[in-house]
Amino acid sequence: MPDQFNSLDAFRARLEALPQPDAEAVAAAKARDAELTKPPGALGRLEALAIWYAGWRGDARPQITAPQVAVFAGNHGVTARGVSAFPPEVTAQMVANFEGGGAAINQLAALAGARFSVHPLDLDRPTADFTQAPAMTEAELVAALSAGWVAVAADADLLVVGEMGIGNTTAAAALAVALHGGAGADWVGRGTGLDDAALGLKAQVVDAALAHHGDALADPLEALRRVGGRELAAMAGAIAHARVLRVPVILDGFICTAAAAALAAARAGALDHAVAGHVSAEPGHARLLEALGKAPLLSLGMRLGEGTGAALAINVLRGAVACHSGMATFAEARVAGG
Amino acid sequence: MPDQFNSLDAFRARLEALPQPDAEAVAAAKARDAELTKPPGALGRLEALAIWYAGWRGDARPQITAPQVAVFAGNHGVTARGVSAFPPEVTAQMVANFEGGGAAINQLAALAGARFSVHPLDLDRPTADFTQAPAMTEAELVAALSAGWVAVAADADLLVVGEMGIGNTTAAAALAVALHGGAGADWVGRGTGLDDAALGLKAQVVDAALAHHGDALADPLEALRRVGGRELAAMAGAIAHARVLRVPVILDGFICTAAAAALAAARAGALDHAVAGHVSAEPGHARLLEALGKAPLLSLGMRLGEGTGAALAINVLRGAVACHSGMATFAEARVAGG
Repeated sequence: MPDQFNSLDAFRARLEALPQPDAEAVAAAKARDAELTKPPGALGRLEALAIWYAGWRGDARPQITAPQVAVFAGNHGVTARGVSAFPPEVTAQMVANFEGGGAAINQLAALAGARFSVHPLDLDRPTADFTQAPAMTEAELVAALSAGWVAVAADADLLVVGEMGIGNTTAAAALAVALHGGAGADWVGRGTGLDDAALGLKAQVVDAALAHHGDALADPLEALRRVGGRELAAMAGAIAHARVLRVPVILDGFICTAAAAALAAARAGALDHAVAGHVSAEPGHARLLEALGKAPLLSLGMRLGEGTGAALAINVLRGAVACHSGMATFAEARVAGG
Repeated sequence: MPDQFNSLDAFRARLEALPQPDAEAVAAAKARDAELTKPPGALGRLEALAIWYAGWRGDARPQITAPQVAVFAGNHGVTARGVSAFPPEVTAQMVANFEGGGAAINQLAALAGARFSVHPLDLDRPTADFTQAPAMTEAELVAALSAGWVAVAADADLLVVGEMGIGNTTAAAALAVALHGGAGADWVGRGTGLDDAALGLKAQVVDAALAHHGDALADPLEALRRVGGRELAAMAGAIAHARVLRVPVILDGFICTAAAAALAAARAGALDHAVAGHVSAEPGHARLLEALGKAPLLSLGMRLGEGTGAALAINVLRGAVACHSGMATFAEARVAGG
């Protein structure tokens, strides 16, 4: 792949050179929207979504025909601290479930007509316990970013990235603190189902990680290396590559959004090609979306990850685009009021 | 159609004999939900939606394969009062647009794989101006209820009803006051795009209607006759027939919900087979949903009617059902934690 990278500096250089939406397509899509057979603004957010999508695709009358869902899985050394209700073996078991078509994301990707892939990332080699050491070496971070980068299909016209990784809400919370401040208690949640005592422990684990790494977390990609995880880095790599390809992205839950937030912190505007698919029941997610200025498309109390909330939102975005591109204009339909 | 009715009393009798969900299917669906490969509750509202759908269909592992979208159109004498930003001719013009496939609802019904029909109801014979007389005679009300009743396909497994009718947010607001109290100003909104002065006039028109009809509005179906409209009555008839057929319904915006509210006021629990597809930008809608105890699936600032918000929600409900019926159990997938 010619635009691939083999160092963190090369990845940083990619972030500096991100493309922007096509201003001509945006203008043409806005003009079209004003002529469609509906009162101005009557489709609410659908109108802005369609114009946004048109801009990134460089097509004033686009369709969504090739959505892609890519799920990344990683294991986390921090699970040794007792931060998850499920044992780490479940990560690999769920990867097998994804491969067998039995998980929630399989059903939702199929419903959206999306191609689906799952990418296990060195599951037998968990990241280091980040309360004691960086989760990844720089080479491991680059490998994980690359795994996400190359997973994006060049002909996709919409991307959803999801994750599976026992312990990864703890990594996401630590990353959120590093990027947006506060303490562990501000960002942790019950994940797959912690009780109150375990929730308190999880906040302490995040605080311990922050104390251990200190100022080294000021750089967003260094924070991703130190307190993130392979699947988080892979999601960041995939989202960045989608931007290079001008493929719009629907963000999923807390972990996906935390990974994306590292890109936004590293490069202002890096998530302009992304919308928030939903807001999850994990309390840090709403906070993170607010920090990123992203309003969710769905709010259904989901907290599964895997890309499920974003995959469910594919057909909402597709509906917006279908109205925009398929409706008649006032002139075409001979309706008064255009 | 053997279960048809030819008087308002006969329709009232239908409402008294509404079927209930299948308790066995509900119990079996709940048991299945607990065994699926996800932490308990991790799919949020999707889980309750799937169990609710299973109960109405009498099938613990259902699919949604035959959704139906039916749009009803009517004209309103109250438009003579200047309550709409568009002229009444637009109703018939938009019916032609629906028939030609050019409206927003056509795109969204197609995206959902739903069969689509449009039902113009005596467009050249508007209802009476309800500030001065009942909108409909009893025979006209029964005809409109029947038009909705017979529009429901016996083999549909999900129903969305939508509407088109210049002036019908005024009728919906008057009906909402009759059913739930308050004054015109509490329930009116900008509809297709009123300015402040016209909005004040619209509230006065509603108040005038309430003053004219007085206590006669205490009976919900009589209120539907006096201040409703043909498309509102048809939606009520369709929703009632769907219940008889145990076809779940997704409610659309303010006008659809006001029509549905007349059923709920006439017969407690009459909307147990219905979910709210979205909350619209028309301010009375959120208020009405709260009064009905219905939380919307989507909140995207839409205010177009036609069934668009509900049609967009079809794939959300379908996603819930697809996860429920398609996912592997912990035992099937050999995942720990079941």
